[in-house]
Amino acid sequence: MENRKIRIAITHGETNGIGYELIFKTFAETEMLEMCTPIIYGSPKVAAYHRKALDIPANFSIISRAEDAQDGRINLLTCFDEEVKVDLSLPTEESSKAAVKALERAIEDGRKGLYDALVVGPTAATSLSSGNGHTESIADYLGRKFDNKDGGLTIFNSYKMRVASANESVDMKKAIGNISRNLIEKKATTMYNALKRDLLLSNPRMALLALNPTANGEEETAIMKPLVDELKEKGIMVFGPYSAEQFFGMGYYESFDGILAMYDDQGIIPMKMLNTDTATRLITGLPVACTVPEVDEVFANAGRNMADESCMRQAIYNAIDMVRNRATYDESRRNPLPKLFHEKKDDSEKVRFAVQKNKEIKPTEE
Amino acid sequence: MENRKIRIAITHGETNGIGYELIFKTFAETEMLEMCTPIIYGSPKVAAYHRKALDIPANFSIISRAEDAQDGRINLLTCFDEEVKVDLSLPTEESSKAAVKALERAIEDGRKGLYDALVVGPTAATSLSSGNGHTESIADYLGRKFDNKDGGLTIFNSYKMRVASANESVDMKKAIGNISRNLIEKKATTMYNALKRDLLLSNPRMALLALNPTANGEEETAIMKPLVDELKEKGIMVFGPYSAEQFFGMGYYESFDGILAMYDDQGIIPMKMLNTDTATRLITGLPVACTVPEVDEVFANAGRNMADESCMRQAIYNAIDMVRNRATYDESRRNPLPKLFHEKKDDSEKVRFAVQKNKEIKPTEE
Repeated sequence: MENRKIRIAITHGETNGIGYELIFKTFAETEMLEMCTPIIYGSPKVAAYHRKALDIPANFSIISRAEDAQDGRINLLTCFDEEVKVDLSLPTEESSKAAVKALERAIEDGRKGLYDALVVGPTAATSLSSGNGHTESIADYLGRKFDNKDGGLTIFNSYKMRVASANESVDMKKAIGNISRNLIEKKATTMYNALKRDLLLSNPRMALLALNPTANGEEETAIMKPLVDELKEKGIMVFGPYSAEQFFGMGYYESFDGILAMYDDQGIIPMKMLNTDTATRLITGLPVACTVPEVDEVFANAGRNMADESCMRQAIYNAIDMVRNRATYDESRRNPLPKLFHEKKDDSEKVRFAVQKNKEIKPTEE
Repeated sequence: MENRKIRIAITHGETNGIGYELIFKTFAETEMLEMCTPIIYGSPKVAAYHRKALDIPANFSIISRAEDAQDGRINLLTCFDEEVKVDLSLPTEESSKAAVKALERAIEDGRKGLYDALVVGPTAATSLSSGNGHTESIADYLGRKFDNKDGGLTIFNSYKMRVASANESVDMKKAIGNISRNLIEKKATTMYNALKRDLLLSNPRMALLALNPTANGEEETAIMKPLVDELKEKGIMVFGPYSAEQFFGMGYYESFDGILAMYDDQGIIPMKMLNTDTATRLITGLPVACTVPEVDEVFANAGRNMADESCMRQAIYNAIDMVRNRATYDESRRNPLPKLFHEKKDDSEKVRFAVQKNKEIKPTEE
């Protein structure tokens, strides 16, 4: 990394929501500008409207290209020129279009490497729907936009547990149908690589939650149990499948660095029961580090100066950590020592260890 | 009810498990015998074995018919004469057969009305399997044995929430397939009647959890939303369907007397995250009041005097409450005032209210 501040792209999210409020309040603390240089993907007019409605001070420098962003300033990149009618607290089509426009511009710049990390402002799930009404998760959306065929993976990162879902934003009937060896392997591998590279855990322990409450159904026997053995063989320390009821009820979750749930409710409900304030979504498996602040209500109380900005601050911290961790991880593996001759005759344990250090673990190709 | 103590049948559960330990420890407090008269469905030989292994004092009076049970004593009803080999902490076939034998004898006596409430001792789920390997929940098992075509319903009763599952002990693929208007209506109605009659809540508020994480899938639109409206029309205050993630994450569960989850993990995980010690399973919808102590491990540490008996005590308290509540409820509705003539000309609200008081609400027959 060059010797400059980490550049964080932040999209404004729904223009009728609390996006600008979170951004203004976060950067009201000037220390934030010492840690990173923000580039807000948004619209100066909408920003000014929110600033007036909220009646809070906020100074931003308007730029038109990410390259012009300057350290020490809140850079506001104009993503579109059209007028946007702001209806505070209302989920309108205009609001959702503006959110997507800013996100697409940010993705475009991300592909050119114009910033280090992306923080996605509060966006309603429905705004990312494709035409046929199917709602896409942010991770799927970004995965597609960044040409990642395996899609991104959202890890809910909280102080007490880190949990991901193998079926993000998918209805149950479809989720059950999706469960396959291939899907679970892909998600588990993506999560494992993220725990190592994005969170810098040297040897993460992961848990797989059973699809069925008994943990002894068809899917566990035919797919999950053999897969756990295979992944361990590859060097991925994954355990399970655990009965989710026991896993959470008896506190097993405290012993793992990452938990892979089979569908959303299975993993997100227990995490939310523990703490709702500090979880941030890390979107992993993408070329650019990405986080999403976890907001309960995107629209409610917008413009009333009532939102708590700590989720946004947390998302920015997590994004900065991801960038730094990735740099450290990559740096330490950039120029490995050449394998010594006597190691080749050594026991397999050591050789496998050396291999692991040099390359990422990839899911088996079909 | 006659003026005698409430008779509680307690089955010994797995003979290799912690059943006898829980029973002995519970009745070591003599106050328990002032509240109820226990009839332990078990085997004197096995009881003596456990008493010796645990090295705790326990006096029981051996009887051979429930009619012979006496107040102020721990009545031990001999359910079978065969020798049972006790292998402490091991789930063996003999142990499971002994558990089922005691339960079947207790059910037989229950059908004859020889006691007021049934407490099912710790029994492994697999012991109730039918021949083809299908695991039945205790509620289904008892429902079948008591000729209840709708089956029983397990309500997990804890201080912080009361939750039931529309698909007990069912694998996910089957659970999703089971979801129908009819199933949800049956379970919701059974739960509503139980909240009124077993828990004596005069106007319970119930919540329905959405099957899909988005709460906006096919099942919600086609089945659950119309059903909620219909049930309200019938006088059952049921709300939803709620996104389970929001429902638990934002603390909505605190506002409801009962929660109906669509499958086990959805409802039981959040309940266990709140508190694992105080939940008791109430098996409702049966002619006899029935409870099951919630035990984490049926077999582990059996015979080592390490089990905490508070779950058994709680199950007995809950059973006594159910018996008393049912008596109060039925008594208050036994001899209603005849409808007065001028009420017939009155607004429908009042007439409907009068009807509700006299009969149970039944699900629509197909």
